[in-house]
Amino acid sequence: MVNVGILGATGMVGQRFIELLSKHPKFEIKALTASHRSAGKRYEDAATWYLDKAMPESVKDITVVDTDPSQVDDVDIVFSALPTENAAVVEPKFAEKFIVASNASAMRMEDDVPLIIPEVNPEYLDLVEIQQKNRGWDGFIVTNPNCSTIALTITLKPLYDQFDIKRVYVSTMQAVSGAGYNGVPSMAMVDNLVPFIGGEEEKMETETLHLLGNLDGGVVTPASFGVSASCHRVPVVDGHTESVFIEMENKCDLDEIHASMDNFRGLPQKLGLNSAPEKPIIIRHEENRPQPRMDRNQDGGMAVTVGRLRKDAAFENSFRYVLVGHNTIRGAAGASILNAELINEIL
Amino acid sequence: MVNVGILGATGMVGQRFIELLSKHPKFEIKALTASHRSAGKRYEDAATWYLDKAMPESVKDITVVDTDPSQVDDVDIVFSALPTENAAVVEPKFAEKFIVASNASAMRMEDDVPLIIPEVNPEYLDLVEIQQKNRGWDGFIVTNPNCSTIALTITLKPLYDQFDIKRVYVSTMQAVSGAGYNGVPSMAMVDNLVPFIGGEEEKMETETLHLLGNLDGGVVTPASFGVSASCHRVPVVDGHTESVFIEMENKCDLDEIHASMDNFRGLPQKLGLNSAPEKPIIIRHEENRPQPRMDRNQDGGMAVTVGRLRKDAAFENSFRYVLVGHNTIRGAAGASILNAELINEIL
Amino acid sequence: MVNVGILGATGMVGQRFIELLSKHPKFEIKALTASHRSAGKRYEDAATWYLDKAMPESVKDITVVDTDPSQVDDVDIVFSALPTENAAVVEPKFAEKFIVASNASAMRMEDDVPLIIPEVNPEYLDLVEIQQKNRGWDGFIVTNPNCSTIALTITLKPLYDQFDIKRVYVSTMQAVSGAGYNGVPSMAMVDNLVPFIGGEEEKMETETLHLLGNLDGGVVTPASFGVSASCHRVPVVDGHTESVFIEMENKCDLDEIHASMDNFRGLPQKLGLNSAPEKPIIIRHEENRPQPRMDRNQDGGMAVTVGRLRKDAAFENSFRYVLVGHNTIRGAAGASILNAELINEIL
Amino acid sequence: MVNVGILGATGMVGQRFIELLSKHPKFEIKALTASHRSAGKRYEDAATWYLDKAMPESVKDITVVDTDPSQVDDVDIVFSALPTENAAVVEPKFAEKFIVASNASAMRMEDDVPLIIPEVNPEYLDLVEIQQKNRGWDGFIVTNPNCSTIALTITLKPLYDQFDIKRVYVSTMQAVSGAGYNGVPSMAMVDNLVPFIGGEEEKMETETLHLLGNLDGGVVTPASFGVSASCHRVPVVDGHTESVFIEMENKCDLDEIHASMDNFRGLPQKLGLNSAPEKPIIIRHEENRPQPRMDRNQDGGMAVTVGRLRKDAAFENSFRYVLVGHNTIRGAAGASILNAELINEIL
Repeated sequence: MVNVGILGATGMVGQRFIELLSKHPKFEIKALTASHRSAGKRYEDAATWYLDKAMPESVKDITVVDTDPSQVDDVDIVFSALPTENAAVVEPKFAEKFIVASNASAMRMEDDVPLIIPEVNPEYLDLVEIQQKNRGWDGFIVTNPNCSTIALTITLKPLYDQFDIKRVYVSTMQAVSGAGYNGVPSMAMVDNLVPFIGGEEEKMETETLHLLGNLDGGVVTPASFGVSASCHRVPVVDGHTESVFIEMENKCDLDEIHASMDNFRGLPQKLGLNSAPEKPIIIRHEENRPQPRMDRNQDGGMAVTVGRLRKDAAFENSFRYVLVGHNTIRGAAGASILNAELINEIL
Repeated sequence: MVNVGILGATGMVGQRFIELLSKHPKFEIKALTASHRSAGKRYEDAATWYLDKAMPESVKDITVVDTDPSQVDDVDIVFSALPTENAAVVEPKFAEKFIVASNASAMRMEDDVPLIIPEVNPEYLDLVEIQQKNRGWDGFIVTNPNCSTIALTITLKPLYDQFDIKRVYVSTMQAVSGAGYNGVPSMAMVDNLVPFIGGEEEKMETETLHLLGNLDGGVVTPASFGVSASCHRVPVVDGHTESVFIEMENKCDLDEIHASMDNFRGLPQKLGLNSAPEKPIIIRHEENRPQPRMDRNQDGGMAVTVGRLRKDAAFENSFRYVLVGHNTIRGAAGASILNAELINEIL
Repeated sequence: MVNVGILGATGMVGQRFIELLSKHPKFEIKALTASHRSAGKRYEDAATWYLDKAMPESVKDITVVDTDPSQVDDVDIVFSALPTENAAVVEPKFAEKFIVASNASAMRMEDDVPLIIPEVNPEYLDLVEIQQKNRGWDGFIVTNPNCSTIALTITLKPLYDQFDIKRVYVSTMQAVSGAGYNGVPSMAMVDNLVPFIGGEEEKMETETLHLLGNLDGGVVTPASFGVSASCHRVPVVDGHTESVFIEMENKCDLDEIHASMDNFRGLPQKLGLNSAPEKPIIIRHEENRPQPRMDRNQDGGMAVTVGRLRKDAAFENSFRYVLVGHNTIRGAAGASILNAELINEIL
Repeated sequence: MVNVGILGATGMVGQRFIELLSKHPKFEIKALTASHRSAGKRYEDAATWYLDKAMPESVKDITVVDTDPSQVDDVDIVFSALPTENAAVVEPKFAEKFIVASNASAMRMEDDVPLIIPEVNPEYLDLVEIQQKNRGWDGFIVTNPNCSTIALTITLKPLYDQFDIKRVYVSTMQAVSGAGYNGVPSMAMVDNLVPFIGGEEEKMETETLHLLGNLDGGVVTPASFGVSASCHRVPVVDGHTESVFIEMENKCDLDEIHASMDNFRGLPQKLGLNSAPEKPIIIRHEENRPQPRMDRNQDGGMAVTVGRLRKDAAFENSFRYVLVGHNTIRGAAGASILNAELINEIL
């Protein structure tokens, strides 16, 4: 067993880390950190539990400590569910001695920090060596992308490799859990939706191209097609839905697009990583799927469900589909854990 | 006062007709039709009222009659809120002697039937003469487009005229009222959304180009740019939200796009029609608007609210915005009434 | 016209005061106060407007001032939408020179402060003289009850007078607007409800008996029957629904109960106060009404709608009904305004 | 393994039966029936699957047959998820040769048909012998109560036994799944609730007393305290919430009430039946629990969660609490399965 810690363990994503890690066959939770206010308390007393399944017994008695590397001992990997501003300061300190698998956005676009989806660009892990040399750290930081980006990019990867992409338009309908328990007032979500999520569109546009780019000589060159995102918040607890319009560079037909997604397998599938879904992309053929409540938990919340895959007759080599991905599992805690499983296996 | 009737007066759109017409300064409700089951009853007894504002006193005692022209007398205009299949059979019979202002889709794409948004293509009313000659009717049928199409096309009209359009992608988040009171089960709308609305995408793609087309020699030639729609149902009572990505043919900047929409006025504004909003398009500048609950009722539900108007850096001459339009007012009953006001004024 | 001010004008209830007062025939808004952060700004710049209808033009340019009597001039009445803790400190200062019509709970249960529903206990206004003498104020404070209490007590009043009450059990299903815009997270209201509202049950139990009590010799003796409340938050924007079980002291039948509520009129109806509903209680006979979205706005949100009035066969002289009342109109801003109208008319 | 069938297998409760039975250690699904329209089809083709977890592989290829005993063979127990009218006709026919564990209400109040909650009144199974003699059947019918009744009665049982009950008032907030997938329109559940569920209050009042009654000489004498119910539908997918006011016959304090519920165990717990929750009642102490989304799945959806247990100061020996029970598991399919497990163990 590898001993692990969770930074920011009391928030929404922190709780998902606990839920997923408490039953993990290879990782064992040994440390939980939170803000100074919670430090010193039993986890059960420090956290207001938000998830539908009850708090795992195994963490209730763990004493929460300050989010400070001096307070954490005897672990190899720390998972970071810290807020961005906090992560920017604290993650580098942890990386001096620990492996940091971070869901925070703070370090994602640093030149020497791998931003990774294991099915998409595992080779970016080569940046770890450069990062350690650059910064003189014994540990290192690996990050996963924004929740909406992960689900989108998993579906783009096989298409990009096989047919090249010319343009992507994506309109999201995102769950409220992505903003934290108190993030979205109910006044905004009853008989309503909100067509704005701060910073989300920029992340989707930048991170997607970075993930589908090329690592050469220690430098990532992003992919060069156009991505345009419009992000909206809807009254759904978990599960982001994304409506995707895509134009391919090369000629292809609907069957080829379907087969490309359906046959897609990545390194996690080949290695049989614990959190890897059997198929990264599940395609449904009913006319009214995917739906977030019914499809978000596919394969433990780690598969992305695609439906309504159809030709776009208005434009050449163009297609449309709708996807659903679990934003706090595949899009956050599960993503960091899959990164850590990959590191544990190949580094 | 012009005497009017409402065909299909007990359904959701029928009730909106009643609400809007009961306080109309020029139209007076004289006849209400419904299915055979309701015929002979007082309207108050025949209809289960669905709207938030109470049933107008003036219609409670009107006796509902069968949807049959022989049952309707003493009116000049009938508004049709009939289901499509029904409309296809019944509207032509009414058109033999009445003006039919229809919200149904049955006759919209007939060559000699005007499909009209008064701000967009009032000149299509010229088809009326051809229709009457072709069919030997004393009356005629005029139709308004699908609810999602109307809101979209109003925002496209000034841009199309001024800069020409190359491509439009639109992803909708539509209210449940559009499907009728029993149309969408709550099981589908609690912690969920449904990424499919039967026939809606086809209507948006076809009707939009038809409306922005050209009438010459009695024939409509549709506009020729590409429109691609993806339609989704969300838990909102009234008000369709649409996320629009647009690429212009001609060079233009964000200020020009803004001004084009903001300055747009159509014939209803010039004529001062009773249901015409002061401005067809209201632009909001807050980062999180428009929102359906807060913006759907602008100008009595007849204005379309646009927000998040922004450049799309990924593509040339490209822009994005979000719009909200009231689906059963501007998108249905109010649309037919505005058509009738136009007819009443200029024919 | 009477010049008025609004204390705490930027919050949810403050905005309802503005909405209702901006079209009031006798009151004219002259002053708006808020926290120090907003002072000095135009109201339009200081407030994020939460209501479905747009901000009235007439208040946009009013300069917000600190909630401090020295900053407010030239008004006779101030309406208080202040948070409780704040109200406890500030309202007495304002009462030195102004009439304070308060929706805050801070002063409600003070011996010499009238807690009033004009239809229920207008005679408690006699406490004003005592209050002014006790405290040496030129102005005075009059309060209205908690939102849930108002709707309940209006329905109890005629029954109490006519048949005497033995016991009342009430289970509420309350709208989220009652907690302020940010008060209830959407995570708590999607596919969920919350069976707790801090302090609400105690207020309902205490205030109801106080309102139905007896003022004699300057002292209020509360009514002596039992009231038991259980309060729950549900995903509704506006409109509290209350399920009431009532046992009468005296023998009575369903028709008498019905007639008692239906015929109930109070002093505001007799005086024709501007905000008085024609009937304080509207009884509906459909099996599935009242419903908050459809009944909350009855008579401008000032009437309480009662439905499902039925005998309770399990117990003697017992009945059940469900009521809906608009929590931020009849239950808050409208209640204070009706109090002020009463004062303006009779003091 | 005992072979079982499911009558009405394509509806909401039928699907819960499939979900729960497909992983059952002792029961094996061998037959699925539905309406004539579905007969002859593979189950996967006949049913639109409504549950969040995917359809079990094991039932996909089962051929659906007509709901007719001649079509069903080789099973010992049939579970009935039939609509009431249908059940009244068909269940007796099945009972000629099969054990029928029914969730339908049709036969519940027949004199010789056991209406059972295994933790509450397992002794009513003695009626089986009478039933078989009366009707000349080789099989028999056992029923479980209405969903709201089950959760309520489980919490009342220990209190009734220990302190006797004087009166119970219960106000429910019920999930939409109880009405079937198409039962409640979303128009009724967005920014709204509906204070009426046909027949529900009568069932709660009658069945509760029947369950807590006394079987003597083959005749059930119902308990004699008063139960008054008011039933409301709220926008929650699964999980009924009930607000309970209770007055005890005998003197008791809050600690005794708490201990009585907390220590309650029934026959299923003693026998270790497969679907029996460890504790029938789970008491939570947070001020804002139970909540349906977070508590409905306790112990596989078979435990009832009680919270906000508190003294009711308004009345003597009176208490209040809120409960959440899963309506389609503990309140329907799981209830029938627990009945069948009990029968399988002791008959």
